[in-house]
Amino acid sequence: MNSYLDLIEAAIKKLQFKGHPKSLYDPANYMMSLGGKRIRPILTLMACKMFDGNIEKAMYPALAMEIFHNFSLVHDDFMDHAPLRRGKATVHTKWDVPTAILSGDLMLVLAYKVLSKSNDEKLADMLSLFNNTAIKVCEGQQLDMEFQHKNNISIQEYLDMIGLKTAALLAGCLKMGAVVAGASTKDAEYIYDFGYKLGISFQIQDDLLDSFGDAQTFGKSIGGDIVENKKTFLAIKARELATPAIRKKLDTLASETDYVRKVELILTIYEQLGIKHITKELSEKYYQDALKDLDSISTSDASKKELISLAEELLNRVR
Amino acid sequence: MNSYLDLIEAAIKKLQFKGHPKSLYDPANYMMSLGGKRIRPILTLMACKMFDGNIEKAMYPALAMEIFHNFSLVHDDFMDHAPLRRGKATVHTKWDVPTAILSGDLMLVLAYKVLSKSNDEKLADMLSLFNNTAIKVCEGQQLDMEFQHKNNISIQEYLDMIGLKTAALLAGCLKMGAVVAGASTKDAEYIYDFGYKLGISFQIQDDLLDSFGDAQTFGKSIGGDIVENKKTFLAIKARELATPAIRKKLDTLASETDYVRKVELILTIYEQLGIKHITKELSEKYYQDALKDLDSISTSDASKKELISLAEELLNRVR
Repeated sequence: MNSYLDLIEAAIKKLQFKGHPKSLYDPANYMMSLGGKRIRPILTLMACKMFDGNIEKAMYPALAMEIFHNFSLVHDDFMDHAPLRRGKATVHTKWDVPTAILSGDLMLVLAYKVLSKSNDEKLADMLSLFNNTAIKVCEGQQLDMEFQHKNNISIQEYLDMIGLKTAALLAGCLKMGAVVAGASTKDAEYIYDFGYKLGISFQIQDDLLDSFGDAQTFGKSIGGDIVENKKTFLAIKARELATPAIRKKLDTLASETDYVRKVELILTIYEQLGIKHITKELSEKYYQDALKDLDSISTSDASKKELISLAEELLNRVR
Repeated sequence: MNSYLDLIEAAIKKLQFKGHPKSLYDPANYMMSLGGKRIRPILTLMACKMFDGNIEKAMYPALAMEIFHNFSLVHDDFMDHAPLRRGKATVHTKWDVPTAILSGDLMLVLAYKVLSKSNDEKLADMLSLFNNTAIKVCEGQQLDMEFQHKNNISIQEYLDMIGLKTAALLAGCLKMGAVVAGASTKDAEYIYDFGYKLGISFQIQDDLLDSFGDAQTFGKSIGGDIVENKKTFLAIKARELATPAIRKKLDTLASETDYVRKVELILTIYEQLGIKHITKELSEKYYQDALKDLDSISTSDASKKELISLAEELLNRVR
């Protein structure tokens, strides 16, 4: 895993966007330098390797996916009024709002520019996959924004939203690697589906950890979603299962200003309703379904080991 | 000219972006339906025709340029706090800010998607031209934003900014048509330079008309730039030529709240300094230089007539 990360980090360092005005390029380089696990480009490289492709040929497409991901973070952070990203100031905070919009736009174009560097007979296919993935991410973010002003979101609506916003990008990254390696259409679809289900499993578990995780391992403070009344899987499921009396209590707690009390009382309700168990089970179900898709791929079992390890790391599983 | 416009309008009508959520796609279709002169896609079609290319093959690239242009308007209008665009509410006003950001992002991706429909051996060249043009437009808009907080902008800085923000897109549209038609590299460069200089000429004249034009023909109210203290060619040139006493007067007038008085007094200063004449001359110089580039292109004089007519219409010249 570390060797992939090293490859990606070295390539990002070499990338260094240069241009004028500096105020437009600095935020792009800043975002790319903030690090993170680089899951998305690693998925592209791993999928390429799995289908016995040339990893070097997958590097530009992998970088394009990572640049795209960072573009979406810049715009999302502004829309979410987030002050911090990976412990550092977000672009609209460190610079200003127009700079965040424009350097985000620039990054989206730069993602296409990097993708087109893989001057290859497969460019049209890669471009088409990239476009369709990017469109899904925009749709997912718009739904997420809409949900903030909407009550009674169903579990299905929620799953569709995280599918577009989170899972489609992971799936697209994997399929990108498959396309570069020249995998069959069927195999490319299987690896896409594997990534999509893995993404859903991951997001549901992320929701769970925000309420029931260990702050140290999770890396964020616990209960943040509850404090902000975020419509997570847990919150939606709880409203669905609650009796009228409990639902009323949840409504009242939404405006509770003593956050410690708020988190404590809502967690108690979640426990009563068995939310923790239900959430774990659904995340597990998506992961098992994902593994079935991986299993259907025509390559050897050995070729799939790396991806399974990465998936388990992503899901914070003890191996 | 009208036949090109009809072709473009028909193609835009057929385009109709469809997808979920509606709140993401409606603003994109709204922007595309607001009309305008469709100069950019017409330039692509005309350049293709001029080089004896197949106009049908140029349609997707032409539409991609128009979608890109509209994407940039959506984000610019938000950054400029503009309430109206072509007499209708801007996207961030009619919907909200996140919707303007996200539907703008979507339009940028859709521009690439439409471009990639021209499934052609020239896709890599078109993509590269599109990327480089889009990057320039982002750079130009960032410079324009920066200039708002900056004093003592030089004429050269101003020309570079409008070159990136306005002229590069017109130039890129023309070159796109040349690429589709398979023009020689040299001819493609000439038509790019023609478009670039035409764009500068146009923008300088647009600045002029905002202060000295006829409201009816110009289509906007006169003096808007002066009221907003916009750093136009006229304003920068006036500061450059002003004596210390007049410069002081201009500084004082910048905060004048009686707008009628403000416009009147600043126009008087412009007249004293001969700004109108200087501006006209520079616009004319760029137009003549543009025509020289057009003249250098290897096709027949007859093939260039349409483009010259369009250029003259753009520059509001009586033919």
